[in-house]
Amino acid sequence: MSDLKIVIEPGRQDIVMTRTFDAPREVVFRAMTDPELLPKWWGLRDTETLVDRYEARPGGSWRIVERDKEGQEYAFHGVIHGIKAPEGFTATFEFEGMPGHVLLETHTLEEVDGRTRYTSVSVFQSVEDRDGMAASGMEDGAGQSMDQLDELIRTLV
Amino acid sequence: MSDLKIVIEPGRQDIVMTRTFDAPREVVFRAMTDPELLPKWWGLRDTETLVDRYEARPGGSWRIVERDKEGQEYAFHGVIHGIKAPEGFTATFEFEGMPGHVLLETHTLEEVDGRTRYTSVSVFQSVEDRDGMAASGMEDGAGQSMDQLDELIRTLV
Repeated sequence: MSDLKIVIEPGRQDIVMTRTFDAPREVVFRAMTDPELLPKWWGLRDTETLVDRYEARPGGSWRIVERDKEGQEYAFHGVIHGIKAPEGFTATFEFEGMPGHVLLETHTLEEVDGRTRYTSVSVFQSVEDRDGMAASGMEDGAGQSMDQLDELIRTLV
Repeated sequence: MSDLKIVIEPGRQDIVMTRTFDAPREVVFRAMTDPELLPKWWGLRDTETLVDRYEARPGGSWRIVERDKEGQEYAFHGVIHGIKAPEGFTATFEFEGMPGHVLLETHTLEEVDGRTRYTSVSVFQSVEDRDGMAASGMEDGAGQSMDQLDELIRTLV
């Protein structure tokens, strides 16, 4: 049962997401940052996810492409500011369909009673950018990704 | 005469800074991103600035050290998300004395009647982080840096 919570407070520039996974954080960290595992959960259920590159190190770059059933591609990229296993990582994120709108994402994993509490804080360059992301169906998309991540993690423990 | 303006609105997660320079933006862009020129303006007037690395390209990394008169060093680092001459760049920023507190800075240069309008938007992971930066003497420090940048630019045109 998902305890996913997405907080989008009026007037703020961030989106805060939390969810618990029933696995040690080493496993969650690996599922979240291993380029071989990313396609198994990143993105929507009915799209194919291709990892162009994912350099899971400070200063690394990443680029991920989602391809829908009609073959339309949606690409995203950024840089990894900092990453430390199994605590989490901080990276930038840009949807190539909306160039120039960049966010900073901080992903934190805490172990609580053998389970992992995941928190992501995404900060946007403006409230308008934040509200645009919220209006784009991001909550539904993030829910699908988190469910797929949960399913993947269950196969890794 | 400096028209520096720093906007820190209560409750927001950003600091917005604007200033005009009396030079074409190619010159301002070069002064802001050339590792040879950075030590001439970055940081406070009475500190020495050392560029450990500054890779002015998308995916590049940067690290700058300020050394005060007593020899105490203050280091800062980040990654360059995107950069396009002479329009501007987007990069992360972290003070190594406060690890884990990262900001995303977007620097934009616009040419207006042969002069350059510079805007920087810094977004923080929380309002508390933003307020901490504002309380740290950042406004005075940024003013000194901008004045030094202006003096440098006058020697380049």
